[in-house]
Amino acid sequence: MSSTHLGLDLGGTNIKAALVERCGGDVRVVATEACPTAASEGPDAVLERVVALASRLTSGFVTAGLALPGHFDAASGTGTLLPNLLGDWVGRPIGGPVGSALGMPVALVNDVRALTLAELRLGAGRGASDLVCVALGTGVGGGVAIGGRLHLGLGHAGEIGHTTVDPDGPLCGCGNRGCLDRMASAESIAAAAGAPTVAEAAAAARAGDPVARAAFARAGEYVGRALAGAVVLLWPERIVVGGGVADAGDALFEPLRTELRRRACVAPEIPVVRAELGTHAGAVGAALWGAEA
Amino acid sequence: MSSTHLGLDLGGTNIKAALVERCGGDVRVVATEACPTAASEGPDAVLERVVALASRLTSGFVTAGLALPGHFDAASGTGTLLPNLLGDWVGRPIGGPVGSALGMPVALVNDVRALTLAELRLGAGRGASDLVCVALGTGVGGGVAIGGRLHLGLGHAGEIGHTTVDPDGPLCGCGNRGCLDRMASAESIAAAAGAPTVAEAAAAARAGDPVARAAFARAGEYVGRALAGAVVLLWPERIVVGGGVADAGDALFEPLRTELRRRACVAPEIPVVRAELGTHAGAVGAALWGAEA
Repeated sequence: MSSTHLGLDLGGTNIKAALVERCGGDVRVVATEACPTAASEGPDAVLERVVALASRLTSGFVTAGLALPGHFDAASGTGTLLPNLLGDWVGRPIGGPVGSALGMPVALVNDVRALTLAELRLGAGRGASDLVCVALGTGVGGGVAIGGRLHLGLGHAGEIGHTTVDPDGPLCGCGNRGCLDRMASAESIAAAAGAPTVAEAAAAARAGDPVARAAFARAGEYVGRALAGAVVLLWPERIVVGGGVADAGDALFEPLRTELRRRACVAPEIPVVRAELGTHAGAVGAALWGAEA
Repeated sequence: MSSTHLGLDLGGTNIKAALVERCGGDVRVVATEACPTAASEGPDAVLERVVALASRLTSGFVTAGLALPGHFDAASGTGTLLPNLLGDWVGRPIGGPVGSALGMPVALVNDVRALTLAELRLGAGRGASDLVCVALGTGVGGGVAIGGRLHLGLGHAGEIGHTTVDPDGPLCGCGNRGCLDRMASAESIAAAAGAPTVAEAAAAARAGDPVARAAFARAGEYVGRALAGAVVLLWPERIVVGGGVADAGDALFEPLRTELRRRACVAPEIPVVRAELGTHAGAVGAALWGAEA
């Protein structure tokens, strides 16, 4: 018997949806959709767009999950820290209204934890028991799987972006100094590369531009340093790196692996691989989270 | 029905043994023993002393565990990295000969992972599901429990001592620079405090000596920084700090908690507590490891 599961991913720019079919141990993505978030229209309008997008997919799903770009309180289904969504989301009910509209409970999950779960079941983390995932985009998110399951600890485990990689570094939005999130953000890489966007910086790096390559090398070194802390602590089987910044390829991955090897030499060398699932990974992971929760 | 389990802890200075009785969910320590390691007599003599110590405890145990001060290969039961034991332990069979002498298989476990398990079941970590433990002694060891079980990953997860806390810091024995193990070792604290031993430095700090207090404050800050990385990654319920360096009390714990709070501000404040089980914690943990393995 197969069952169908809905996943939604509310991002700062776009909302994505995926339908996932599970049959025994087999999992496959059967449909995907996307639309703009239009965050400037405010939380009510954004949540209506989430529900409208869901309705564009076949009904018949038996569980639903919703990925959010930040922190929430799982018990009450309200937002607690969603800096990449415009408007006031703190304390705002999210799970409740979306669940009412869909006619079933909605399991909330952080977007990078959702990506981690999707990569674990269907992507570059397949077959691993213990996995560390890092997503390099506007900010730096992360996720940890232990024993084949997402590890959340007291709620939002996986925040590798807030590892201190430069103790006297610049102030981060969280209040700490020298967080990976600050030192390897898309914006800081684009600025260091002298490019308007990180995508253009990545293209320049792939084409061999030395300034762009140096910008990715510096970011890769910081990512490797943060990952080294995760590796000595967890000795995972695999590390998955996703997000737009990873499109720079070797310009990022070579310095990353070098720093990781150098800093985590007490542990064996852990494979560092690219995420495989692309743009709908968060929605797919949200569907899996709803199905497994 | 109760069962009795033997635990042995082979340290650089002393060998310890403990008998643990399990009855349903209840666990209690029924006997302990200790003797000098006399490491200079070489591996054969040391392993004979381990077995002789075990024979001083009542027989009738149904499982046995042995804690080692470093790394080993669990499959072959041989040493791989035991820098605190004199002589050549690399590739040397340990589990095999001790097991033959005891008449049953011996489960090997790292000494600080054993301490972590003991604190989780019987000590300061009781009732916690996810726990991070750090032991501050000659070196800095650690352990991680997830979902109420010791997490070992690919073998030796928990090596928080090899977290980089000062990227340009002094060379560590592992090959990295600025490891916590180097920056907060008993030796480095005693040297900074101008005391012959860390115990004397701790006594001076408790008595208010400003140089000694500054030495523990610096070490505490580094420990807090490494723990902050573990906290943002794992969001554990509790942190347990053991080892002789912890005897300095507030001179260590206050700067540690301040740095942890400052660096891990993305996570809730996690209680940092002293280890409770004292000198036989490793042997007790080895007994539990043998019983649970």
